[in-house]
Amino acid sequence: MAKDKTVRAAVLGASGYTGADMIRLAAPHPGIRLTALIAKGHAGQSLAQVFPHLSGLDAPELVTSDEVDWDAVAVVFCGLPHGTAHSEIGKLPQRIKIIDMSADFRLRDPNTYAAWYANEHSAPKLIKNAIYGLTEHYRDQIKSARLVACPGCYPTAVLLALLPLVKAKLIETSDIIIDAKSGVSGAGRSLKQSILFAEAGEGLSPYGIGNHRHVPEIEQELAAASGAAVTVNFTPHLVPMSRGELCTCYVRLAGKTSAADLRKVLTNAYADSPFLRIVAEGAIPATQHVRGSNFCHIGVFADRLPGRAIVVSAIDNLVKGSAGQALQNFNLMYGFDETTGLEQLPLFP
Amino acid sequence: MAKDKTVRAAVLGASGYTGADMIRLAAPHPGIRLTALIAKGHAGQSLAQVFPHLSGLDAPELVTSDEVDWDAVAVVFCGLPHGTAHSEIGKLPQRIKIIDMSADFRLRDPNTYAAWYANEHSAPKLIKNAIYGLTEHYRDQIKSARLVACPGCYPTAVLLALLPLVKAKLIETSDIIIDAKSGVSGAGRSLKQSILFAEAGEGLSPYGIGNHRHVPEIEQELAAASGAAVTVNFTPHLVPMSRGELCTCYVRLAGKTSAADLRKVLTNAYADSPFLRIVAEGAIPATQHVRGSNFCHIGVFADRLPGRAIVVSAIDNLVKGSAGQALQNFNLMYGFDETTGLEQLPLFP
Amino acid sequence: MAKDKTVRAAVLGASGYTGADMIRLAAPHPGIRLTALIAKGHAGQSLAQVFPHLSGLDAPELVTSDEVDWDAVAVVFCGLPHGTAHSEIGKLPQRIKIIDMSADFRLRDPNTYAAWYANEHSAPKLIKNAIYGLTEHYRDQIKSARLVACPGCYPTAVLLALLPLVKAKLIETSDIIIDAKSGVSGAGRSLKQSILFAEAGEGLSPYGIGNHRHVPEIEQELAAASGAAVTVNFTPHLVPMSRGELCTCYVRLAGKTSAADLRKVLTNAYADSPFLRIVAEGAIPATQHVRGSNFCHIGVFADRLPGRAIVVSAIDNLVKGSAGQALQNFNLMYGFDETTGLEQLPLFP
Amino acid sequence: MAKDKTVRAAVLGASGYTGADMIRLAAPHPGIRLTALIAKGHAGQSLAQVFPHLSGLDAPELVTSDEVDWDAVAVVFCGLPHGTAHSEIGKLPQRIKIIDMSADFRLRDPNTYAAWYANEHSAPKLIKNAIYGLTEHYRDQIKSARLVACPGCYPTAVLLALLPLVKAKLIETSDIIIDAKSGVSGAGRSLKQSILFAEAGEGLSPYGIGNHRHVPEIEQELAAASGAAVTVNFTPHLVPMSRGELCTCYVRLAGKTSAADLRKVLTNAYADSPFLRIVAEGAIPATQHVRGSNFCHIGVFADRLPGRAIVVSAIDNLVKGSAGQALQNFNLMYGFDETTGLEQLPLFP
Repeated sequence: MAKDKTVRAAVLGASGYTGADMIRLAAPHPGIRLTALIAKGHAGQSLAQVFPHLSGLDAPELVTSDEVDWDAVAVVFCGLPHGTAHSEIGKLPQRIKIIDMSADFRLRDPNTYAAWYANEHSAPKLIKNAIYGLTEHYRDQIKSARLVACPGCYPTAVLLALLPLVKAKLIETSDIIIDAKSGVSGAGRSLKQSILFAEAGEGLSPYGIGNHRHVPEIEQELAAASGAAVTVNFTPHLVPMSRGELCTCYVRLAGKTSAADLRKVLTNAYADSPFLRIVAEGAIPATQHVRGSNFCHIGVFADRLPGRAIVVSAIDNLVKGSAGQALQNFNLMYGFDETTGLEQLPLFP
Repeated sequence: MAKDKTVRAAVLGASGYTGADMIRLAAPHPGIRLTALIAKGHAGQSLAQVFPHLSGLDAPELVTSDEVDWDAVAVVFCGLPHGTAHSEIGKLPQRIKIIDMSADFRLRDPNTYAAWYANEHSAPKLIKNAIYGLTEHYRDQIKSARLVACPGCYPTAVLLALLPLVKAKLIETSDIIIDAKSGVSGAGRSLKQSILFAEAGEGLSPYGIGNHRHVPEIEQELAAASGAAVTVNFTPHLVPMSRGELCTCYVRLAGKTSAADLRKVLTNAYADSPFLRIVAEGAIPATQHVRGSNFCHIGVFADRLPGRAIVVSAIDNLVKGSAGQALQNFNLMYGFDETTGLEQLPLFP
Repeated sequence: MAKDKTVRAAVLGASGYTGADMIRLAAPHPGIRLTALIAKGHAGQSLAQVFPHLSGLDAPELVTSDEVDWDAVAVVFCGLPHGTAHSEIGKLPQRIKIIDMSADFRLRDPNTYAAWYANEHSAPKLIKNAIYGLTEHYRDQIKSARLVACPGCYPTAVLLALLPLVKAKLIETSDIIIDAKSGVSGAGRSLKQSILFAEAGEGLSPYGIGNHRHVPEIEQELAAASGAAVTVNFTPHLVPMSRGELCTCYVRLAGKTSAADLRKVLTNAYADSPFLRIVAEGAIPATQHVRGSNFCHIGVFADRLPGRAIVVSAIDNLVKGSAGQALQNFNLMYGFDETTGLEQLPLFP
Repeated sequence: MAKDKTVRAAVLGASGYTGADMIRLAAPHPGIRLTALIAKGHAGQSLAQVFPHLSGLDAPELVTSDEVDWDAVAVVFCGLPHGTAHSEIGKLPQRIKIIDMSADFRLRDPNTYAAWYANEHSAPKLIKNAIYGLTEHYRDQIKSARLVACPGCYPTAVLLALLPLVKAKLIETSDIIIDAKSGVSGAGRSLKQSILFAEAGEGLSPYGIGNHRHVPEIEQELAAASGAAVTVNFTPHLVPMSRGELCTCYVRLAGKTSAADLRKVLTNAYADSPFLRIVAEGAIPATQHVRGSNFCHIGVFADRLPGRAIVVSAIDNLVKGSAGQALQNFNLMYGFDETTGLEQLPLFP
């Protein structure tokens, strides 16, 4: 696609962390021109005022949704919070493609959505044609989708680790325990006491035990892969770091399966996936090793408990867990190489 | 016990973090006089040089073991690394009581010790009479012990959460998964690349998967409580904070047991234990809430997976997980109130 | 003072960080009984709900100011934000003593207060008799005061370092540059974007350059000590840590004064001050070395620039910089030893 | 320069943080082919073993200097520690160009080097033709240099802020006070107690007061710009973050100069410098805003002290302060656009 045929894109929710990373990644993309940055509460401000780290960009100032010339927009990256995304997206012209990073179109059943998000869905018809944007598992559908619902950060890390194993029937879906850990940016940029530096710093705790909103998403996809309903344990923890997410999945092996079998299946499943890396035996996934990048590192370990194994996955929650995966999906939708604009190597230390 | 009848104590390994916290807690204790601080590599230095935060104390300078007048020592707090503690302790006069914070006398079977610590034990006879210093579970034996082997930091957090449940036969010992998280001080003060600020900061990873040295200790005590061999999954993670340890234990309930039953048993088990707190329903243990103190917070949560529950415990690894518990044991051994010298409230934020 | 003669104290603003540290320190104090914890927005909650780290205390639940039986209160520790403290304090019965940690009674000139705090003072008469609670410099006045206005955290660190030097006329008051650095808890517990973990973490920046509200307080006290108006450079920075404050003061030496002279004067000035420590030559003040304690470490260093020196002071902003100093003043006011309840050693690491 | 005419480059000191960031930036550069990664202590290891975050690269394994086919190398990026760089570089064939990130060729006077680095220089002849690689100020000389001595991280931040002001004679060179703050990666990857997480975390302290090795470098360049010897105050502090450096420079204004004049001169000086940004009035430089990028943000502020101003600069110490500036110099030396390979936007949060 030639440079003069760049896709005109708008970012909805440009003042949050997801929006910021979307702009960071999309602005230098050779096939994208950012024509509108939408952030109701910051309309009239320059991008440099809201995000000084992006002050070098030649970007438009922030506007309200009403101020946008939608005729000049081909695709929308939506980084709005769940609950507000569905109504904003429902109003967009059919012609515009949508890559949604909110939770609003991930769950196929509007009732499940209503139950978990305490929010009636205003655009249930759009759900039907929405494609779950877990790139490595829905490539073909994403290519021709109008609306891609990018997975939550936790589901991305969990499903990339477990879906190939469930599909290959190597693990028991009745006994999946997911101990998840996230950096604080996963909670967004809104003002909450629990994410103040002095509250979250030098400390660690679980949260949302048994009722985190990423649960139904994980269960929906595992069920689709296994052909039967799945219930999982999912226990997230808040870690004193800004970025990064690590999921330690404790699984029961089916029949005579070994940890080595899991490793083999994962390696094959992602042989053609440039951002997925099954770490060498003895190596250990760490969020430091993927920071700022679209990579996902996965490790498989034998368990001391017979018949069990441990699968560990690490991502950057704002990149592979959000804006990076969104851009990866954009690349598929518009015929770019999957890695375009996502070549940044991880930042360590 | 009158002030002029203070117990003369020495600290072996006074230059490490365990030694530092031992001095911090013991120095103001009304029943202790610190007569010797032993740290081979720092002999001749003042305490203020090695630990400027303790510069206000009227403490002796650091010496080698050979320089100590052992006749003037009644009790030794040993904060040496495992592998060096057993030979140093083996040389001490029988008259001297020992509160060991190393790993060297925790395992009752010297062969198990040799296997896990790659180190032949030089004082196997002392092991026989060593008492495992998990205060809340061995109070009576500790009172009359000569040598108390204080538990590791992880085993402390895990066993306080699980031992009452195993003793009450409320959980299946064949299916215990322990996802543990520790601050970096748990790795000690020795120079290792993995614990440099720039390596461990802003990042998270598991380590020692399947072979952490605290495993045999946990299994030994669970086996003793249940009457049969126990194997557990124990997966520790390194968290970017200095202090604090949180263990998320995933357990299978026996028969018709509920999470509420676990809570009730734990509450009863620790009714007379001043440092153990079963947090209110809805509240969540966090390392921030016990930082710098000898408290252990435990929470019990129902699991989405039927027939399972989640038990979460939080401690300060250097206090309840090491020096604080050592002092608590000292109090029992010398007839002080269990809380003497341990009244510090947690430091938050 | 016998235990049955404890002073009945109330804490105004019990739900902030200052309030929390006030309760942490005052609750175990042998001469204090906390009879009321006041926090408008949290009335009806238990202390454990607002501050789980204090859940072990036998403390009253939080109430509004109206609910307090003021007849049962002898002294009030006020941790309210500036601007609300003066009106609350103005309403209290004359009989009640006040130890105010807000900014409202620090400035002797109500106009200066109004100018810097954009707030008309509602109790200007009380200002007249308020004593500036920098303990080491106002001991005698504090002993007999009704209202003690404890210094801000920065002024505490700065003035402890500079006042003796100004009084001794060893430094030029026309050329004082103060580069100050504070942990994030200094900004309080209110919700502001700049103190979110993901904003303040892994980063550093100055703020309030040239207009920080602690400036007039510093200048007022330096002027009082020198006998003439003083203007200073004061440039604070936000550091990614929860607690701690370090001020690096660049001063021009008067006449033939040397850095050694400064050290000598400071050492003498604080010879009888148990919490002030002039660190040994070659040693360096660090916030880690005073964390959680009431200590202030001060170091003096020769400058490469001839005729100049560097004076560095470190405190815990919530202890010596706020609640600890408040309690130290309480001790003076009620005849306790100055260190009572403040014996906690610093927490390192 | 066509892609098939890439420059063959070697990295000396590939296992340190400087080496890692050099590889991170150079590997994707369209004009560079990394033909040798040299790290004595890690020879035989893959890059992924030493730096798992770089495991995706198609890079050669690490080797010793002796194993390198120097005929196949056109340029060397040297990230060796000072003291070892000069002898290694001295041995290289004259044909090879050198971009040195060590301190060994920065000081023009070998005696000054010997005095500050306690190390006799083994290649004094090479010093003569070495160009100080502060890109924005030595562009022309760098273009034709054989050996470029990239500035230290602190001198980069300080000189970018001050050199234009000194050249324009707007500030007094006799009264420059530089309060500098650095993240921990500035201390390198070698094992030192002071940079352990538990030592440096949650704390702040100055270090190297009056004798930091970056002083002579700063003074050399300021002297060259002003035409007379310059002595500065330079006081660095260690901040609990991995990356980032901020220098707060307190300067005395010459004659009737105002802060606005400084801003104007800086703006003009860097009008054609793509990585230098004078932040808008009211905005404040922060290390978070340049993290991971080659940008330098500079702010100018009026001082309350009459006749003075404050100049603040922020960089990423490993990028603009080291590997990024090295690559920028490479671009000049080999005719690439100055920004090639350095387009990464800062990573925030």
